[in-house]
Amino acid sequence: MQLLHSLCRVPAPAGNEAALTRFVLNYIHQHQANWAHRPEIIADDRFQDCILLVFGQPRTAVFAHLDSIGFTVRYGRQLVRIGGPQVEAGYRLVGQDSQGLVDCTLTVDAETGELGYAFHRDIDRGTELTFYCDFRETATTVQSCYLDNRLGVWNALRLCETLEHGIVAFSCWEEHGGGSVAYLAKFIYETYGVRQALISDITWVTEGVHAGLGCAISLRDSLIPRRAYVDRIRAIAAASGIAHQLEVEGSGGSDAKELQHAAAPWDWCFIGAPEDHVHTPDELVDKRDIESMLALYRVLLEEL
Amino acid sequence: MQLLHSLCRVPAPAGNEAALTRFVLNYIHQHQANWAHRPEIIADDRFQDCILLVFGQPRTAVFAHLDSIGFTVRYGRQLVRIGGPQVEAGYRLVGQDSQGLVDCTLTVDAETGELGYAFHRDIDRGTELTFYCDFRETATTVQSCYLDNRLGVWNALRLCETLEHGIVAFSCWEEHGGGSVAYLAKFIYETYGVRQALISDITWVTEGVHAGLGCAISLRDSLIPRRAYVDRIRAIAAASGIAHQLEVEGSGGSDAKELQHAAAPWDWCFIGAPEDHVHTPDELVDKRDIESMLALYRVLLEEL
Amino acid sequence: MQLLHSLCRVPAPAGNEAALTRFVLNYIHQHQANWAHRPEIIADDRFQDCILLVFGQPRTAVFAHLDSIGFTVRYGRQLVRIGGPQVEAGYRLVGQDSQGLVDCTLTVDAETGELGYAFHRDIDRGTELTFYCDFRETATTVQSCYLDNRLGVWNALRLCETLEHGIVAFSCWEEHGGGSVAYLAKFIYETYGVRQALISDITWVTEGVHAGLGCAISLRDSLIPRRAYVDRIRAIAAASGIAHQLEVEGSGGSDAKELQHAAAPWDWCFIGAPEDHVHTPDELVDKRDIESMLALYRVLLEEL
Repeated sequence: MQLLHSLCRVPAPAGNEAALTRFVLNYIHQHQANWAHRPEIIADDRFQDCILLVFGQPRTAVFAHLDSIGFTVRYGRQLVRIGGPQVEAGYRLVGQDSQGLVDCTLTVDAETGELGYAFHRDIDRGTELTFYCDFRETATTVQSCYLDNRLGVWNALRLCETLEHGIVAFSCWEEHGGGSVAYLAKFIYETYGVRQALISDITWVTEGVHAGLGCAISLRDSLIPRRAYVDRIRAIAAASGIAHQLEVEGSGGSDAKELQHAAAPWDWCFIGAPEDHVHTPDELVDKRDIESMLALYRVLLEEL
Repeated sequence: MQLLHSLCRVPAPAGNEAALTRFVLNYIHQHQANWAHRPEIIADDRFQDCILLVFGQPRTAVFAHLDSIGFTVRYGRQLVRIGGPQVEAGYRLVGQDSQGLVDCTLTVDAETGELGYAFHRDIDRGTELTFYCDFRETATTVQSCYLDNRLGVWNALRLCETLEHGIVAFSCWEEHGGGSVAYLAKFIYETYGVRQALISDITWVTEGVHAGLGCAISLRDSLIPRRAYVDRIRAIAAASGIAHQLEVEGSGGSDAKELQHAAAPWDWCFIGAPEDHVHTPDELVDKRDIESMLALYRVLLEEL
Repeated sequence: MQLLHSLCRVPAPAGNEAALTRFVLNYIHQHQANWAHRPEIIADDRFQDCILLVFGQPRTAVFAHLDSIGFTVRYGRQLVRIGGPQVEAGYRLVGQDSQGLVDCTLTVDAETGELGYAFHRDIDRGTELTFYCDFRETATTVQSCYLDNRLGVWNALRLCETLEHGIVAFSCWEEHGGGSVAYLAKFIYETYGVRQALISDITWVTEGVHAGLGCAISLRDSLIPRRAYVDRIRAIAAASGIAHQLEVEGSGGSDAKELQHAAAPWDWCFIGAPEDHVHTPDELVDKRDIESMLALYRVLLEEL
């Protein structure tokens, strides 16, 4: 899991994903020679900090978001959320401003809930802070901040090793209202005619989805994908014999929101490992669910 | 009202409209020979489960959503809402899963408000349930679940009998965040240059809009249409002598949300009969308002 | 500030901006002969009540919204909000209906908060009411309703006097959910390849942004612009020596929402003078911040 560890350590709060974009592009350039098939790599100004990899004659696109949750320094010692991080006094936050590296702790006003930081100096207005990465691996689990969604990115990069036909799209801003999938989807649909999508992202351990029982195929969250498409996926998954679970939620969202509202007839399905301690520095995933996720994506990209 | 009765009985919860799509397509194929003009019928993979009918040289498009509210089976015996159904313990819900037909009753936890079902067995995770259809007709009213929006669909189909120039679009997902009107609108605007829309949907009886006084022309809901377009419609309606009412709301929405936010300059107006007992199994509409609605659409499609 | 005064007096509630569109078009036709460069003026049915001015070989587009907040007359003597006006009993509201001019006062039910009006007669259903304009100017300040966003429009029109390369877009519906920037942005991107935007709008005096210290460059509000673009703007602003402040908010929005969600890779940044008494009849702006705003736009349109 060295790759996953590295991915978790690169800061990429929504709106400032550039460092992770560079890391992923470097990784692609270094490793694609070992992939079974070479993709077209599309990463230029038309796509801001996103990356598209196009393999063969694609029928399906996989979306994995690069960005993470975090905090923006406001005035005084106030912080404003980027996305929806859990907040607990004492969380270690890191970043960089004009005076150098920042390594501070989160404060939460007991009465107002107002967020702030404790540090020996003021931090520049507008500086982004992210969770300090304490990556922990056991025989059966990985634990770190930002498994959501570095694990989805990892899954997409590992999928590339064997992928013959398909598109892998690395997106931005997913944690904070979206803003890149609309144009990625437009380009993909208009250029390749592709309108089937899988969302390579991480979901929640709940009373109905348990760690270790396989990755989750989401039947719905706050949005509802087209039943006919999800049924095809369920049939392929069942026939594959790969462990998986069915998820049904009434809330939550993903890059699929922009697909659902796109001016093109996208079918989509969220498929991802479940994690515990969501949106904290201690996100925890069972390795069996990671294996199941990658195995299922490999089958689905062949058969869909 | 045999057609309306049939429409109300076909289940089509948002995301799984396929059965109603087939019903409407069959109806069109069976009846178009008797229509004054034959439309082009567009219903293929580019439009998922939507249907477009294009008559003559269109200037205006009518949008009628096929989907309805309902419930999704979650874990244990929990239910999650599809759209915004009213919930009252004892409502009869129907559906189908791998073990066969489902006919159960809604439960509402008195303390938590959590939704569930009472049935002699567990229902498959992800199964959609809809209200049981008890269609009631009197000399002056119709009452059933899903008059919203089977009455809007009925109005659009009846409009087809005499329509010479215009587009009728049957859309999906309206009750649950939308997801089809964006691409329908793009296709219509780019292919036909049409950017005038009427929303054939059902609204609410309120202190300002009364049953029996004619269908409502909505001057606004949560969104505000362009005044100049609504004023043209009001002038045509006034000159027609057809009974109608003016509605002003601060909340609520329709397929028009996607038109308002489309990357094309759509003018739109919601025009529909008001109903009582909104989003329950007992939606009630006055027949005079249905007549007024169809008459007004006939005039508007000619004169706009 | 005669131009600003005139702009503030023309009613243009969201959805009914036509009067202000006419005013601005007249102003452009009367004054463009004195501008350093003549723009292409685009204002036809494809753009509803919006206006586009295209100067030279544009690289950057400035968006200034024409519309304002206000109220719609509902039933009885109820009012419904257009956008998010502050409400205080006694505010003077004006409008026009079939019986003539309206000049009434806002009422607020002490218990329910329900909004209404006091007037000697009933006002037609659907009539829009706006704040009465009491324009006040001192040596150092201007005060009026609707400085948000007539000052942004003023800034854009003054910018035209010297602009050589760039686009100025006057938009609609910004105060009430948007609805025009999506198609303006699509046209601009597809026709001119432009995907850099500045939002010429008014922001808030807060504990971190003070009147008189220069216009605000917003690093974020409810949405987060791409860091790389904002950093370029900050560098140009710093090098220019023009007074400015950095703003960081967790809420609020602008025309940028539609750019962020567009199916094109727009970079955007909100730059505007701060005002006190936001969304009241008494919006107050320091003249130094107005000067700073115009000076900064002039530099940025040259250097971005």
